[in-house]
Amino acid sequence: MRLIVPLQGVVQGKGGLLLGTLIPCALFYFLQLYLKRHRSSPKNLPSRSSSSANLSELPRSSSRANLLSRGSTGRAQLSSRATSISKPSDSPYYIGLDRAREDPYDEIENPNGIIQLGLSENRLSLDLIEEWFSKVFTYSSVGIKCGPMISTYQPMDGMPSFKKVMADFMTQVMGRGEVSFHPSRLIITSGATAAVEILSFVLADPGNAFLVPAPYYPGFDRDVRWRAGVELIPVHCRSCDGFTLNIMALEQAYNQAKKRGQKVRGILISNPSNPLGNLLNRELLNDLLYFARERNIHVISDELFAGSVFGDEEFVSMAEVVLRSGDAADKERVHIVYGLSKDVSIPGFRVGVIHSFNENVLAASQKLARFSSVSSQTQRVLTSMLSDERFTRDYLKINRERILSMHNVFVAALRGLGLECLKSRGGLYCWVDMSKLISPYSEKGELDLWIKLLNTAKINVTPGSACHCIEPGWFRFCFTALKESDIPVVVERLQRVVETCEPSCV
Amino acid sequence: MRLIVPLQGVVQGKGGLLLGTLIPCALFYFLQLYLKRHRSSPKNLPSRSSSSANLSELPRSSSRANLLSRGSTGRAQLSSRATSISKPSDSPYYIGLDRAREDPYDEIENPNGIIQLGLSENRLSLDLIEEWFSKVFTYSSVGIKCGPMISTYQPMDGMPSFKKVMADFMTQVMGRGEVSFHPSRLIITSGATAAVEILSFVLADPGNAFLVPAPYYPGFDRDVRWRAGVELIPVHCRSCDGFTLNIMALEQAYNQAKKRGQKVRGILISNPSNPLGNLLNRELLNDLLYFARERNIHVISDELFAGSVFGDEEFVSMAEVVLRSGDAADKERVHIVYGLSKDVSIPGFRVGVIHSFNENVLAASQKLARFSSVSSQTQRVLTSMLSDERFTRDYLKINRERILSMHNVFVAALRGLGLECLKSRGGLYCWVDMSKLISPYSEKGELDLWIKLLNTAKINVTPGSACHCIEPGWFRFCFTALKESDIPVVVERLQRVVETCEPSCV
Repeated sequence: MRLIVPLQGVVQGKGGLLLGTLIPCALFYFLQLYLKRHRSSPKNLPSRSSSSANLSELPRSSSRANLLSRGSTGRAQLSSRATSISKPSDSPYYIGLDRAREDPYDEIENPNGIIQLGLSENRLSLDLIEEWFSKVFTYSSVGIKCGPMISTYQPMDGMPSFKKVMADFMTQVMGRGEVSFHPSRLIITSGATAAVEILSFVLADPGNAFLVPAPYYPGFDRDVRWRAGVELIPVHCRSCDGFTLNIMALEQAYNQAKKRGQKVRGILISNPSNPLGNLLNRELLNDLLYFARERNIHVISDELFAGSVFGDEEFVSMAEVVLRSGDAADKERVHIVYGLSKDVSIPGFRVGVIHSFNENVLAASQKLARFSSVSSQTQRVLTSMLSDERFTRDYLKINRERILSMHNVFVAALRGLGLECLKSRGGLYCWVDMSKLISPYSEKGELDLWIKLLNTAKINVTPGSACHCIEPGWFRFCFTALKESDIPVVVERLQRVVETCEPSCV
Repeated sequence: MRLIVPLQGVVQGKGGLLLGTLIPCALFYFLQLYLKRHRSSPKNLPSRSSSSANLSELPRSSSRANLLSRGSTGRAQLSSRATSISKPSDSPYYIGLDRAREDPYDEIENPNGIIQLGLSENRLSLDLIEEWFSKVFTYSSVGIKCGPMISTYQPMDGMPSFKKVMADFMTQVMGRGEVSFHPSRLIITSGATAAVEILSFVLADPGNAFLVPAPYYPGFDRDVRWRAGVELIPVHCRSCDGFTLNIMALEQAYNQAKKRGQKVRGILISNPSNPLGNLLNRELLNDLLYFARERNIHVISDELFAGSVFGDEEFVSMAEVVLRSGDAADKERVHIVYGLSKDVSIPGFRVGVIHSFNENVLAASQKLARFSSVSSQTQRVLTSMLSDERFTRDYLKINRERILSMHNVFVAALRGLGLECLKSRGGLYCWVDMSKLISPYSEKGELDLWIKLLNTAKINVTPGSACHCIEPGWFRFCFTALKESDIPVVVERLQRVVETCEPSCV
């Protein structure tokens, strides 16, 4: 601010016309001198002036021979935005995922491999999916219907028949008999990751920000920041509150952003929370909605695990809350992210969903969905699957019971080692307090323990710092990719680490 | 430049310290006065100061009641970038596609509907795809293999098994026994549209530009500009040269961009050209490569129609040209876009490919592919299809013959109406000279004719102006979605328009 002022001020001021003329002249002179010097000694590029003369003098067919005489002129560079993306990530979340992928544990084939507890994948009910494929898909006419008739261009944001069954499925999972989802409000995307990216692009401009309760899912940084260029402002939740979001902390984060001159365009929540596994209750959702209303900002509710609540736990969707509020402007600010990667255990099929009541958001998202669209062939297969009411009803029920049961066994096993988990009610993971095992009590201590778990115990988990948790020592353990028979192996491996830590840390 | 100068100049100049202090003080004063006035009367937002006081005084549970008392505060806005995207397009390309989609011609069901010649879709060989699905897919174990075992997370940039068959297929289509494509150089994306977007993002920063020979495919504007924010600079080709790209025109466009201060990061070509249907010969490709080398810029070669050349026509890939050049730096600047939407007639399956020799481009594209990934289930089905050597060999041969045959019939029919086409050698369309039918001889005359074709003849085609063609009166007609029995209907409808034009225009 002290260096740049409008010249107008000088021209009208005491300095008068002379200064207003001389200054730009002098500046232009030095600028041109600078440019001339720096242009005449290019590092990688040959002199442009000579080549263009040659090219315009020569007929097109012989220009190549002329060009051939020049040597190679260097490497074509990536854009600066891609350069930063292409670098290997230093987040333990991605490093751990890669390590476990390279050396995966297998009871028989690779018993010393790394056990993957860092990826939220549900393998507990794959047998039900397999059964549907083998019974219904292969031995019926579904297979052939998934072929040529739909190989032509289809709506890029999802086929109407698929949107219909997807809306019905969301009603079944998230509606609680209170609300129903409508196909006209859906945009189908290649995975929820694309849905979050599209919404970020549509709701905020580069440099704008979303408030996000922390700890939060590490992938949000990638989905929101990389291409959409939107910032995430963590609103820290603490163990003393059971990591429940505090509206006052939200208010504070909002005000601080405003003071910095940063425009907050929305709140991004996950419910059931990833990585916490808790459910946001109706009261908190109402508070969030009114907070957003007051500031005229958006709410993005990622409800990817809505159908993966434990047993009979009750999930309340933000869609229900906003419909009950009865406010038209509120409806327009609430956008739901869903998908089939978690609740139906088919992440490889890449099916995500944006649900919005806002016509403009739908219009923009529909156009952008062409960059993230889902194969019509997969949509047709899944239309058959999701319209099989008996299958979806049984699957959802059995899957929830299995998650609950696995959760109970897993949490009890950790408790046996003296490790407590945050009480959770949904999701494929638990949030484990290992703070008494870290030394020093800091992010460094947490990462030391994570490395020990990865290298010594050969278990990959997600450290809280990767989720922007403000308190060190918490870890996300995803337990649904395990078989029950794997649990003793996990316990035995953890035991080794716990023992080495205890003398110094407890 | 006349308005802003560093204050440093003033401070060190004649005005001295006094001016350097007074000017910023005065400016700050007026700025604050301005901000204060404009902040105190918000249009949509309530006063922030009162609400934050209330919120911090109240416990969280009762804050909602307090918030409830405030009225709704307006509509949450979209980002400015999304606002422009969400608006209905005014390009006749999209308007025509929509119109034909809403009222599609059908011989029996809707004989007065619009005949779609605006979408480059190949329906000539759907029977071969259908046959493969019914014979091989349904009555073998392929169906069940496409189910649960691959429903878990797979590499987002394509499954290794699919990359392998895709590389082999590209070698078969584009290699001419001279070059082979390697799976490690491929990134699989949900359609070629996503491949072009990802490459734009990776190779250029916002505001940078690609040179693109015009007329060009109307979708490039969307793929390159919308989210990646890269500009396209048309390099106009003319009918007197058979619309062949002239390197001098390329040079000129490059220099003009440079003078404007715009950074050109690459050349984007389509080969076989869309919308022209001509093939870029080896000499021109070499010229392009050396042009790019001299300026150290990239070459993106969209070879989406490589397998849709007419009959025995020979296609030369930019990959072959760059491999023959033997220059390591050249290899790093050439990136190929491919996909199965055109050559295998399965656009609904959304399969695109990036091929690059540049490790950094591959690394960045691999990360971005997570937003545009293809269903593992579809990849598995297509792995079976593309590894069926007899099927691919027969399909490619028969399909090319059918395109040629349809092309010949269609072009002859147009000639019967007095309409000539540019001599083409590939693609699913022809480039028709209707300049003698337009009046005035301008873009307006061209659009008037396009509207007449759409509304009177009920035929949707793409006017040259939508492809940034500099000469008015040229139209792209896609003929591969027609049945041969449709051609007399097209001729009869066109005849009506030609007749009404002739008295005034010929």
